[in-house]
Amino acid sequence: MQKLVECVPNFSEGKDLGVINKIKDSVKGISGVKVLDMEYDKSHNRSLITIVGSPDAVLEASFAMIKTATALIDMEKHTGEHPRIGATDVVPFVPVSGITLEECVELSEKLGQKVADELNIPVYLYEASAKRKDRVNLAEVRKGEYEGLKKEIKTNSERKPDFGPSELHKTAGAIVIGARKYLVAFNVNLDTKDIEIAKKIAGKVREKDGGLPGVKALGFSVDGMAQVSMNLVDYEKTNIDKAFQAVEKEAKILGVGVKNSEIYGMIPMEALVKTVKDTIKADGFSSSQVLEKKLYE
Amino acid sequence: MQKLVECVPNFSEGKDLGVINKIKDSVKGISGVKVLDMEYDKSHNRSLITIVGSPDAVLEASFAMIKTATALIDMEKHTGEHPRIGATDVVPFVPVSGITLEECVELSEKLGQKVADELNIPVYLYEASAKRKDRVNLAEVRKGEYEGLKKEIKTNSERKPDFGPSELHKTAGAIVIGARKYLVAFNVNLDTKDIEIAKKIAGKVREKDGGLPGVKALGFSVDGMAQVSMNLVDYEKTNIDKAFQAVEKEAKILGVGVKNSEIYGMIPMEALVKTVKDTIKADGFSSSQVLEKKLYE
Repeated sequence: MQKLVECVPNFSEGKDLGVINKIKDSVKGISGVKVLDMEYDKSHNRSLITIVGSPDAVLEASFAMIKTATALIDMEKHTGEHPRIGATDVVPFVPVSGITLEECVELSEKLGQKVADELNIPVYLYEASAKRKDRVNLAEVRKGEYEGLKKEIKTNSERKPDFGPSELHKTAGAIVIGARKYLVAFNVNLDTKDIEIAKKIAGKVREKDGGLPGVKALGFSVDGMAQVSMNLVDYEKTNIDKAFQAVEKEAKILGVGVKNSEIYGMIPMEALVKTVKDTIKADGFSSSQVLEKKLYE
Repeated sequence: MQKLVECVPNFSEGKDLGVINKIKDSVKGISGVKVLDMEYDKSHNRSLITIVGSPDAVLEASFAMIKTATALIDMEKHTGEHPRIGATDVVPFVPVSGITLEECVELSEKLGQKVADELNIPVYLYEASAKRKDRVNLAEVRKGEYEGLKKEIKTNSERKPDFGPSELHKTAGAIVIGARKYLVAFNVNLDTKDIEIAKKIAGKVREKDGGLPGVKALGFSVDGMAQVSMNLVDYEKTNIDKAFQAVEKEAKILGVGVKNSEIYGMIPMEALVKTVKDTIKADGFSSSQVLEKKLYE
């Protein structure tokens, strides 16, 4: 099976489309990688560029984008609502198919070393790549943001980066790099306006409170109706069908029906294949039987 | 959405791999089409080559293969267990994604006209492309086979082809061309050795006997266990999940459980997307959200 990695670097520029496009265009000419999506937000003053491809190509492309962002973004002048510590703020590597999370960790370490060596930018490893427990969570790594870290990185040994100098880059700050599993954003809409019911169900299904593994959940009100909004951070453990069934079951106990569900954004083919396998007990079914998959490999 | 058509021409050569490979190699150099599979059977003396691609490319590729088969296969010398009327015996066009059955009918008519005009071979249109009720079914079109049709095509006006001369090609005979929907081969294995139960369930779920639309079903014994073997000839009407649930329901009535199921061969991504939509009520979900799909388009 072809190895496919996704990488979604976040850059601290969400207003100047010229700059964002230049960062994106750094990928041009690198074969084996494709830009799938680009998003930017003015009030966050932040952009996300999604690339997918072979591990080597994604490594090369992510470095090329970081290099461009380093040249074009000055953190000394940056303001925005979203927490950030660098021009390139965070770079997650995500396994899509034919590759393990561990291989993505290796990829993140390679990129971290290269960024430190060639661009002289301090790098923190997070999520599955974290070398310390207190760096798994992105919010903890970003504590104090660019302005706070500027002093702390020099004075507080706890904030020493995993690669590179104990000093922020003059304009590009620091970068958080790591590997994490594919996150499926999945919402289930209830047949009620009562947001408290959505909150109760969320409390039942989320891992934190003893629910399903790899499920984060909150109750919201969307268009006047109650919604259980979930992040499935490990669809191999809890996939869309299992999460749906769990919400449906809890809703039934509370006397409420499920209206429909929505998969937000992209989903890897493997998650669909897994749903089909589970739903119809098709134990031997594999993505190699998907016609389009065979066509493109 | 990218238009994808599958075409599975059947050739009356199942022994001489040199000939079969030459037919397959006719596709080389035609961009936008790919050979997905090649099968051949010595006792049937017959081969199948599966190609997938854009409508224009598939049209060009299927004609190129027919031309090669016409030059290399002599029906006067052909024997085999499988019914056949020509060197290229039957050519079905099948919609895979972004294209309707009607567009595949048009494609089959274009190919039929071209084969008649340029190769002087009589062409019969079948399945969705049939112009007469008695030509929908392939068996009826092939009645009498090559040897019988050789006389009848000249003398019986009922056997006049849809395109081309009322006379078989001297070595290549005639060709049946048409469009049909994608066929999903789907088996459900029961928790019993009693084949009569599989037969009863098959009788309940198949369309012919008042069951589900687009479902053909038979009961078999496979590895000593009872199996309901189905062909889903219109997965947009009855998809794998619905067929599975129907078999499971009937099995329960008869006091039997379902062990597992198997999807045999390839399946289009749309059938998976449809299963997911149905299973978790994800009304708005579309194949454009499948990461691999977006990657390759």
